[in-house]
Amino acid sequence: MTLALDSAAQDLLFREARTANAFSDEPVTDEQMQAVYDLVKYAPTAFNQTPLRVVLVRSEEARERLVAHMAEGNRPKTRTAPLVAILAADNEFHEELPTLFPHFPQAKDMFFAERPAREKSAALNGALQAAYFIVGIRAAGLAAGPMTGFDAAGVQKEFLDDDHTPLMVVNIGKPGENASYPRSPRLSYEDVVTTV
Amino acid sequence: MTLALDSAAQDLLFREARTANAFSDEPVTDEQMQAVYDLVKYAPTAFNQTPLRVVLVRSEEARERLVAHMAEGNRPKTRTAPLVAILAADNEFHEELPTLFPHFPQAKDMFFAERPAREKSAALNGALQAAYFIVGIRAAGLAAGPMTGFDAAGVQKEFLDDDHTPLMVVNIGKPGENASYPRSPRLSYEDVVTTV
Repeated sequence: MTLALDSAAQDLLFREARTANAFSDEPVTDEQMQAVYDLVKYAPTAFNQTPLRVVLVRSEEARERLVAHMAEGNRPKTRTAPLVAILAADNEFHEELPTLFPHFPQAKDMFFAERPAREKSAALNGALQAAYFIVGIRAAGLAAGPMTGFDAAGVQKEFLDDDHTPLMVVNIGKPGENASYPRSPRLSYEDVVTTV
Repeated sequence: MTLALDSAAQDLLFREARTANAFSDEPVTDEQMQAVYDLVKYAPTAFNQTPLRVVLVRSEEARERLVAHMAEGNRPKTRTAPLVAILAADNEFHEELPTLFPHFPQAKDMFFAERPAREKSAALNGALQAAYFIVGIRAAGLAAGPMTGFDAAGVQKEFLDDDHTPLMVVNIGKPGENASYPRSPRLSYEDVVTTV
């Protein structure tokens, strides 16, 4: 037992979880999404900046507006997933820092006075939180279908504003039939890790 | 039970796990790091590109070279952690795509022929994998201390090359005494999630 995490949890989150490209009809509830958020919100970001923002696309009208900005190959699954979430990074996260990082309120002005520094930090830390969110969807017994194939400027204009940069769109639901491709190979430990 | 993940696993990975700033003397073994990697390698990235590369800093000489590039406040913990890992994104990940994404080998040339497109994708997907890696460290019963406060150009020059962009440095080990600050507040679900 090299890992402390139990084997069923390892399977649920990593080994048996797969990116889904087709979904069952079972709805995904707001209660499920709140439980996902209330679990993964604790995972770390720099200065506890937590720049991730989420738009849940629930209405048919909004779904069609989103589908129009997706890459061709992503349209059918984005149209039919029980729930679709747009994950974005808030480039003005620093406004919340005095609340989020109370023991060092100077961080707001010391590190994040300039917009380019904020954008860079929000992109990295928003991506970390996007990954935690994917793990959280799996923790809820659901499958995630994360996608970066979409017109980012179009999605930003349609659903966000100049201060929020889209990171990815995620289909969420129980997997349907033939939901996943056969698993592709992974790089070996030796390919990825070096020691100095 | 809104979540499928058992409560002990929720605590281990998210609710009770904390960023550590001090560590015990207990070593972190290569076997542990391999178990972490072999779990989190399955988590999703775009086109299965898996651009994360890891440098484990084990020798005293390499440790001192790394500490010299860390921000002042990060030096004591980087010097004393049982193990330190540099996480980087491989901007030339596309060379592996025909192996990693065998059912669509055209992806390499269709989407990633240009370096800026690769850098952008590697930054996002490398960050996703960095987050999975942090979750994996916790799955091993260890604490992570991720840091972005370092001279990125210096770390790149010292430990990497022009094709590898550092994402973060992570201290790894069992937490020591007073390892963590009191937990800072998080944004509420209502602050983060909107529905359209």
